[in-house]
Amino acid sequence: MKMTQAELTAFLDSEFPQMRSQNFRIDHWDGRMLRLAMPIAERNLRPGGTVSGPAMMTLADCAAYLLLLGLIGPVALAVTTSLNINFLRKPGLGDLSAEATMLKLGKTLAIIELSLYSAGVDDPVAHSVLTYAIPPAR
Amino acid sequence: MKMTQAELTAFLDSEFPQMRSQNFRIDHWDGRMLRLAMPIAERNLRPGGTVSGPAMMTLADCAAYLLLLGLIGPVALAVTTSLNINFLRKPGLGDLSAEATMLKLGKTLAIIELSLYSAGVDDPVAHSVLTYAIPPAR
Amino acid sequence: MKMTQAELTAFLDSEFPQMRSQNFRIDHWDGRMLRLAMPIAERNLRPGGTVSGPAMMTLADCAAYLLLLGLIGPVALAVTTSLNINFLRKPGLGDLSAEATMLKLGKTLAIIELSLYSAGVDDPVAHSVLTYAIPPAR
Amino acid sequence: MKMTQAELTAFLDSEFPQMRSQNFRIDHWDGRMLRLAMPIAERNLRPGGTVSGPAMMTLADCAAYLLLLGLIGPVALAVTTSLNINFLRKPGLGDLSAEATMLKLGKTLAIIELSLYSAGVDDPVAHSVLTYAIPPAR
Repeated sequence: MKMTQAELTAFLDSEFPQMRSQNFRIDHWDGRMLRLAMPIAERNLRPGGTVSGPAMMTLADCAAYLLLLGLIGPVALAVTTSLNINFLRKPGLGDLSAEATMLKLGKTLAIIELSLYSAGVDDPVAHSVLTYAIPPAR
Repeated sequence: MKMTQAELTAFLDSEFPQMRSQNFRIDHWDGRMLRLAMPIAERNLRPGGTVSGPAMMTLADCAAYLLLLGLIGPVALAVTTSLNINFLRKPGLGDLSAEATMLKLGKTLAIIELSLYSAGVDDPVAHSVLTYAIPPAR
Repeated sequence: MKMTQAELTAFLDSEFPQMRSQNFRIDHWDGRMLRLAMPIAERNLRPGGTVSGPAMMTLADCAAYLLLLGLIGPVALAVTTSLNINFLRKPGLGDLSAEATMLKLGKTLAIIELSLYSAGVDDPVAHSVLTYAIPPAR
Repeated sequence: MKMTQAELTAFLDSEFPQMRSQNFRIDHWDGRMLRLAMPIAERNLRPGGTVSGPAMMTLADCAAYLLLLGLIGPVALAVTTSLNINFLRKPGLGDLSAEATMLKLGKTLAIIELSLYSAGVDDPVAHSVLTYAIPPAR
């Protein structure tokens, strides 16, 4: 672990001011699994009262990025190179949370797996795999 | 073609009021390719002045959904079942646009391909494939 | 569980004679997780003595299909609609095995997650997500 | 272009003897698009007389690899890091061919797009995106 939960929270707040309006919060970080939660707001909803796919992808991307930084330190220039997400079931209106773990941390590539949960729904509502390119000079 | 460009624009405005703040606009729709453009705002940026991945995914998902509705009519309950996106190069700060075409339109499944362009950058900045489940009662 | 380990093994043998030469064997099936193993043969190798990606994809596809049939019964016409695989680390020359679990079993779509292991390597060598379309008349 | 069609064919034959039995042949290579064709044999078929997914993935992976080598030269240690494939429609029993183009050729990562065609079927039968890691010392 290169950054603690408090350091990651401070980093999120200072480097991603655009995210403040989402009220993301890091719920858990033990060096292996990071959980990021978001309250669901009106703007995240789609017709039929369901959480929008893009809201879930935003949460997934942010959770994966924080997991990566937690493990390698504050490398702001690590970039997402790919994201794959499967939407599994309809989320409820409760908090959404993403649990991220590292599948592989290589020198130039990191591959992260996430399950997304909706408060009140037992099974995951989405499953995602993201890839990050890590700049050489770390 | 089941919906015209004007009908799709009206649908976007009435059914997705959350999208209004993004100022998405349909640039082109000929029954085969739909192009959706978005101006880049401060909130879409990441450290280093690049457009965020989630902003690109939001545009991709919306463009694909409009293409689908353009071809099958206003089925508001078609849902995204998967999204795969590869980020290819750094976008500039100009308008972002997504060009969507249908790879396969089946009875219960639609598969859509998109290339994302950034004004001033020749090659695509991202490439995405999305899958939608179409409810049986259409 | 609609098919037992013995029934799945018999089905594999009778319906997929092309697979016999691969010597696939079902190692484990408990109604939740199915493990399919394959011995590595010369023809599965690539330059550098590594198992070929296609050999791993063949194993993943077959394991996912057997898991699906184990849960819904012998629906020979269920078809793969998508496969996503990330190769994580170099496999050794020992047996390869795929552990498949169901992410979502819907009426017309099944989404399956797999981790691939190589005998003698602790961490998974690949991770895959597959989608199957289930014909309506089941 | 770093390798010609004849050089790629010779490389395929010498470095991938396991592929000889598949009778792959390079049909076209102009420095931008590479087309690789395979005749369909009994062992590539699935119940219902359709070409197996793994046969299509093998063709896609090989075509993408040859395209990459055609552009960067004979770097035998470039490795597939991910593959995503969508199966679009049922192939016929005629030759299968894959048309590969480069989406992005970076220093350490190459992203390749392919459409797969079946002789006698107008539209593509599958669409795939592959990622390769390129070893630093090229």
